[in-house]
Amino acid sequence: MISRIPGHTPTRSRAAVHDDLIFMVAVAPDPVPSSMYEQSVKALAIIDETLAQCGSDKSKILSAVVYITDIKRKGEMNRAWDEWVDRKNPPMRACIGVDLEPPHIVEIVVTAAK
Amino acid sequence: MISRIPGHTPTRSRAAVHDDLIFMVAVAPDPVPSSMYEQSVKALAIIDETLAQCGSDKSKILSAVVYITDIKRKGEMNRAWDEWVDRKNPPMRACIGVDLEPPHIVEIVVTAAK
Amino acid sequence: MISRIPGHTPTRSRAAVHDDLIFMVAVAPDPVPSSMYEQSVKALAIIDETLAQCGSDKSKILSAVVYITDIKRKGEMNRAWDEWVDRKNPPMRACIGVDLEPPHIVEIVVTAAK
Repeated sequence: MISRIPGHTPTRSRAAVHDDLIFMVAVAPDPVPSSMYEQSVKALAIIDETLAQCGSDKSKILSAVVYITDIKRKGEMNRAWDEWVDRKNPPMRACIGVDLEPPHIVEIVVTAAK
Repeated sequence: MISRIPGHTPTRSRAAVHDDLIFMVAVAPDPVPSSMYEQSVKALAIIDETLAQCGSDKSKILSAVVYITDIKRKGEMNRAWDEWVDRKNPPMRACIGVDLEPPHIVEIVVTAAK
Repeated sequence: MISRIPGHTPTRSRAAVHDDLIFMVAVAPDPVPSSMYEQSVKALAIIDETLAQCGSDKSKILSAVVYITDIKRKGEMNRAWDEWVDRKNPPMRACIGVDLEPPHIVEIVVTAAK
């Protein structure tokens, strides 16, 4: 049994839920902020919102892969992450420098439990 | 209980199946086409073929991370994706610009349910 | 029920374990070697160590995404991988060229069964 939470385009979901595992992706919503810190804050808020829709929350995140377009600005993303994370239940995390479609400079892929 | 579908080299599998979860990777097979659209079409066909070998199909894909070597050509990959995807069951998807070993310009990592 | 293995910083875990799935990340530990081959060897050893802490081992790895900072040096990472892998139970693997925070030039994200 798989349930899905729609994304902005009909050919992709924001989240897919199977048994008690949630697979989701988040970027900052429109209007997309220009700073790495702000985009990170907004993308992390989308994670909270999406997990809530799935009946979960950030204490149950298993893994997060954070894609950013400038690894030199990882510190800005870290600041948003550290303010946001559940310190009693920190996820596994990798932060990777890549290219993303503008105006996005942060994209986060999460696996969580329900 | 884990089962595996062999890849091109003995030290890697194309897919690993555990309980009802499938972890797989796909690139365009030889001869590798040169366009982003064609490589995407062929890699997506490998996903279909591999999922079928695992007793699943694209309606059960949970997440897909699509790696492409030129984010400016994401539109070509999107076209292949949109023609291929099961619109009633769209996966979570992220598309990331990275470097891949030539001649590959598209590589797709999928998690699916059986 | 989720258990976690602490990482170097309090806001991230090295591994999260849920039911019989393990999500983990590895880089070469300090002092960080300078060559792609050596960093790969050391990161792969961290995978062994972390899986052991979770009650698993490399024969149960389902998927590995290997991030390296220079795709032209993929051969060095492959050499370390091929020396290390359980050839009876090879994981699904993708190798992606990205940017990482120096001095790291290899980072590996693994999903494994217990």
